[in-house]
Amino acid sequence: MEEKNSTKAIAVDAMGSDMGPAEVVAGVAMAIEKGWAPGNIVVVGKEEVLEGVLEEQGLSSHPRIELFAASEVIAMQDKPIQSLRSKKDASLVRAVELVKLGTCGAAVSCGNTGSLMACATLKLRPVEGVSKPALASVWPSLENRFVVLDVGANPQCRPENLLHYAILGHQYAQDALDISKPRIGLLSIGTEEGKGTDLTDQAHNLLKGLGDQINYIGLIEGFQLFNNEVDVVVTDGFTGNVILKTCESLWKMLKGLVTEEVRKSPIRMAGALLMKGGLKAAKNRLDPKKHGGAPLLGLRGTVLKAHGSSDREAIANAIRIAGTAIEHDLGAHTLAAISNANETLKDQLASGN
Amino acid sequence: MEEKNSTKAIAVDAMGSDMGPAEVVAGVAMAIEKGWAPGNIVVVGKEEVLEGVLEEQGLSSHPRIELFAASEVIAMQDKPIQSLRSKKDASLVRAVELVKLGTCGAAVSCGNTGSLMACATLKLRPVEGVSKPALASVWPSLENRFVVLDVGANPQCRPENLLHYAILGHQYAQDALDISKPRIGLLSIGTEEGKGTDLTDQAHNLLKGLGDQINYIGLIEGFQLFNNEVDVVVTDGFTGNVILKTCESLWKMLKGLVTEEVRKSPIRMAGALLMKGGLKAAKNRLDPKKHGGAPLLGLRGTVLKAHGSSDREAIANAIRIAGTAIEHDLGAHTLAAISNANETLKDQLASGN
Repeated sequence: MEEKNSTKAIAVDAMGSDMGPAEVVAGVAMAIEKGWAPGNIVVVGKEEVLEGVLEEQGLSSHPRIELFAASEVIAMQDKPIQSLRSKKDASLVRAVELVKLGTCGAAVSCGNTGSLMACATLKLRPVEGVSKPALASVWPSLENRFVVLDVGANPQCRPENLLHYAILGHQYAQDALDISKPRIGLLSIGTEEGKGTDLTDQAHNLLKGLGDQINYIGLIEGFQLFNNEVDVVVTDGFTGNVILKTCESLWKMLKGLVTEEVRKSPIRMAGALLMKGGLKAAKNRLDPKKHGGAPLLGLRGTVLKAHGSSDREAIANAIRIAGTAIEHDLGAHTLAAISNANETLKDQLASGN
Repeated sequence: MEEKNSTKAIAVDAMGSDMGPAEVVAGVAMAIEKGWAPGNIVVVGKEEVLEGVLEEQGLSSHPRIELFAASEVIAMQDKPIQSLRSKKDASLVRAVELVKLGTCGAAVSCGNTGSLMACATLKLRPVEGVSKPALASVWPSLENRFVVLDVGANPQCRPENLLHYAILGHQYAQDALDISKPRIGLLSIGTEEGKGTDLTDQAHNLLKGLGDQINYIGLIEGFQLFNNEVDVVVTDGFTGNVILKTCESLWKMLKGLVTEEVRKSPIRMAGALLMKGGLKAAKNRLDPKKHGGAPLLGLRGTVLKAHGSSDREAIANAIRIAGTAIEHDLGAHTLAAISNANETLKDQLASGN
């Protein structure tokens, strides 16, 4: 249906991780070893650097790793739009272009989020029927994990955007994260109708109209997020971005606070040493590296933003998720689901927004 | 200026705490003992219950404790508006009425938030020049604490609402929390102009126009919240409510996760035992009970919502904060600051919104 899904190759921007290209390449090798890559991996970046790295790791003539040269690198502090104009041969740009050309079915990058988002949005067309793409983020919960979208691509949403985000999140949870009947919630300030804003009211009405096309559980509030009550949290890019960053800030504060208190006495420090395994296990369960990064959804082709400090395991996991999305034909399913929803709600969409 | 501030008495709804009226009365006694109440305390609730409690605690003829009878109690699960209609003699209603009548300068209640908010908004007039009141919430940070408003009174804000919230937050931080030059930030999804929504853009323009009337540090993002960079976080009631509840959910999940991991081995449990002091100290520093609860700001008279599970210390602290607000003349300062701001920005306000 979508020609992009005909290829199972994955493009990996090797230049974006804080840990350097050697770590990214090691992640590529790990993904292949574990059987997580459904096709070849195209490693994108500075030719001389990557040739050296591949040589060192004994991967120069690996039958499933290819090198695609890109002479420039977009830095974390570069401005999104300017960087795309001035660095046309940047590794993240080339990785996205390989998806655009149909050479690869997905791209993975740990580079500058804004640049990657802008590049993918400009170069890859949206899925037919979707007006705005969404940046999603996968969060850990006590038992599981859940997807939040949008976390910043579209701060000022219309009801139909939220409708589409519900479908994009549903399809991603199903095809990339292997959640069979994802529970979709619309984030508001109470579970009763009419407690939120005009935007949540209208989006809620649209979502109710979908019937059993998705498993819509209705309006949810912040209390329910980490509580294993929901698999996909739908919200506008302003709210999503604010809670993403606020949670990161709270988490850092709590770690700092406990560390500070523990350091106040040798007994507490001894206790922390004994507890170390437990704290590490808890931290591991929360580790965003396991979840393959933040996908940009609603475009023709899968683009995954991995964390800037990704190590080989994080890269391998991002490849695993991208591979699952390709194998399950996320692109074709998304196109069909969006078209289905737009058809079901065509009267409401025509009159409402 | 405001006749409400002429009285230093504080009305305390004795019926709303999960811990029962005896605990609330013990908190009243504690506040008086510590010198935290600038005037008398009027304890509001069921006469026979409170007479018994006062008797038991040897407070029946305390010169600074008065009893005001209210025969009904609004329960936590009651619907806000309905409860106000059906329970006209409820303790939280009477406590607010004592403020309305000028008998008390402030009211403290741990009861149903929605009912308290609705009751105060219906019964107390807004400060002149303020169109919508805000519910504020005081949060702990590593070094300090900060105020977030609105956390749910007004989910759909206009720019002028956010302007007024900045001033209400500024004045509360200064007069009730004793922060001398509070740093005010407007919550957005980046610190650059134009990255948020039309609402944040327009509110930011208004706030910049205030000059040195407040210490406006500009647009902030979620990362900065618990980082001791800001004393007052201004946001709309939708976003504020969502982050309040999401942070509570994350905090619960983290506690659950660590407990679960610790229980997996006796060594870890021994470690947790040694660390106990540190964990408890950390928890104490985060304790919302120290911060006196959530004030409803922008009304003529101070109304504080204390946590539903408030113990005597929490009640005493709420009385302390209410007392500080009365002593510092929060009401008069707020009226003057709002009028000042509206005057400074009158052209922008007339044209803009």
